[in-house]
Amino acid sequence: MTRVTAMATQPFTEEELDDVYAFAVQLGKDAGKLLLEAAQARFNGSGQGSQDFSEKDSAVDIVTKADKDVEAFIKTSIAEKYSDHAFVGEESYSKTCSSRAYLITESTPTWCVDPLDGTVNYTHLAPMFCVSIALVLGGRPAIGVICAPLLNQLFTACRGRGAWLNETQRLPLVRHPSVPPMPANAPQGCVFSCEWGKDRKDRPDGNLHRKVESFLNMAAEVGGRGGKGGMVHGVRSLGSATLDLAYTAIGAFDIWWEGGCWEWDVAAGIAILEEAGGLITTANPPDDPLTSQIDHVELGSRLYLAIRPAGPSKTESGREGQERTVREVWRRVRGLDYTRPAA
Amino acid sequence: MTRVTAMATQPFTEEELDDVYAFAVQLGKDAGKLLLEAAQARFNGSGQGSQDFSEKDSAVDIVTKADKDVEAFIKTSIAEKYSDHAFVGEESYSKTCSSRAYLITESTPTWCVDPLDGTVNYTHLAPMFCVSIALVLGGRPAIGVICAPLLNQLFTACRGRGAWLNETQRLPLVRHPSVPPMPANAPQGCVFSCEWGKDRKDRPDGNLHRKVESFLNMAAEVGGRGGKGGMVHGVRSLGSATLDLAYTAIGAFDIWWEGGCWEWDVAAGIAILEEAGGLITTANPPDDPLTSQIDHVELGSRLYLAIRPAGPSKTESGREGQERTVREVWRRVRGLDYTRPAA
Repeated sequence: MTRVTAMATQPFTEEELDDVYAFAVQLGKDAGKLLLEAAQARFNGSGQGSQDFSEKDSAVDIVTKADKDVEAFIKTSIAEKYSDHAFVGEESYSKTCSSRAYLITESTPTWCVDPLDGTVNYTHLAPMFCVSIALVLGGRPAIGVICAPLLNQLFTACRGRGAWLNETQRLPLVRHPSVPPMPANAPQGCVFSCEWGKDRKDRPDGNLHRKVESFLNMAAEVGGRGGKGGMVHGVRSLGSATLDLAYTAIGAFDIWWEGGCWEWDVAAGIAILEEAGGLITTANPPDDPLTSQIDHVELGSRLYLAIRPAGPSKTESGREGQERTVREVWRRVRGLDYTRPAA
Repeated sequence: MTRVTAMATQPFTEEELDDVYAFAVQLGKDAGKLLLEAAQARFNGSGQGSQDFSEKDSAVDIVTKADKDVEAFIKTSIAEKYSDHAFVGEESYSKTCSSRAYLITESTPTWCVDPLDGTVNYTHLAPMFCVSIALVLGGRPAIGVICAPLLNQLFTACRGRGAWLNETQRLPLVRHPSVPPMPANAPQGCVFSCEWGKDRKDRPDGNLHRKVESFLNMAAEVGGRGGKGGMVHGVRSLGSATLDLAYTAIGAFDIWWEGGCWEWDVAAGIAILEEAGGLITTANPPDDPLTSQIDHVELGSRLYLAIRPAGPSKTESGREGQERTVREVWRRVRGLDYTRPAA
């Protein structure tokens, strides 16, 4: 038996990794079914109707009973099967970690779970919601499962095993005759995915205004906005960071830029994106965006810039095209202010 | 046999209207299947890959072969069955009507068709695309069929016959014990749907900047932005005006505000929204948004504000809640500049 060596520091054989991957996929399907049943109960009136939620942090941050129930189901299932693994879930975390510290270590296999991403969509019965389950090994997401039951979409990936839609279509979706390169004039020709988020304070230089200025630089005509106009092909906001990442892994979105979400929002999506061949780094531009090193994202950084899988063009490799796109995005966006205390 | 009298001026009996509705639904299903097959050909490589489009007006306005093929299929099917009806389709119109005049009359039953709405999504294999087929009677959409094949969603409505998802779930989706009223502090608590559109010129007071200022007023914290802060629950941009309207009819979106799209983008959605109990009027605020009459939308106006179906609260009727929401949106948005010449 060979050990998983590429990036792993955990004591999993390939066979053991296959087992835990199969477990995670089934868990995602089962959790997605729970979400769907709870949603359908609202269609036919057996739920408590559209008021079936309580306000939490703000009017934008609502949490449903399904959210809590599904996390409890996932957490229990994992604890029964892998009692020595750690668990970080959105609901449990909110209750137990008021300091907002980052709890994932490199030494312990850690499940990182959002039982319901796209909560606002869910409460409004818009289909862009999902459950997100990741296993983090050596500090990096190695398994990702995202189930969006009302979209009939299951995204899965495991390190070394490819990324898949509905277990049958390999990601990215367009791969014949080859995975398309990044557009030569990116961000032109790109679909840009971004979210307004929950931090909507009307401060002159607050995150909301920095975001909107960045959105405008990406959306406006080429050459406008002091040379920062990017004129992307389209701007999308689905209301789910997890699905934004999944759609970037598909290749449906070319660029996803976001600040403020948490590790459970992105861990599964990062595993799927990277296994599909995508790139993910920080949302915040360095001092010199055109020459600075492009570091791998820090899972708990709350700042994310993802680029879809890309094939080579006649003049550059897929990775070169992705890095060129990262720099062109960095040229147009503002740094965001999302911090967290040390663990 | 009784004649359809409520709003119709056309010579259809109820039985004839049933027939034409059934024809439209089947046409929508068939056209959706054509779109899906063309999309799937790109998954498995038998299509021409991701470059299967030519640039038209701008980098944002791409048109695929599927677009043209599906419109030709729909146009031919209608001409064979209803040779005396008029036809306005996105593709045919672009070719034949350089003046951009409004061609739908009150006297002739007119099919108003977008063979592929969400073209950018389609070319990127994001699932938010659809075919949209409407029959306009007496100048107003009476039948609407929207098929989003990659979302497995078919939206249908005919005047007097209700609005439906997948022919089984009546719209709006949440209706037990009753259709929820509009939130008491709307736009707070609302999901706001809007699109960045194609008009992205970087003019100081151009449509792009008016849109973004309006988006900000809707999104920012309550009391901010000179008292215009609305702090909606979420901001969504799917990249398809047609699906925006369909999701408003479902109740997934509470408010859709848009300028610049065309009658074929909205005709089917208007039929479905209104039959579900939604309200649609103009995007542009009148001089006194708080007291001005709320007129029914003009189909060709290119300016749309839609409010989801709403039930009564303890203090107001559903319609009163919708109208209150219209006024609160008008208070926060800028008038947009989209005009067209007379026919």
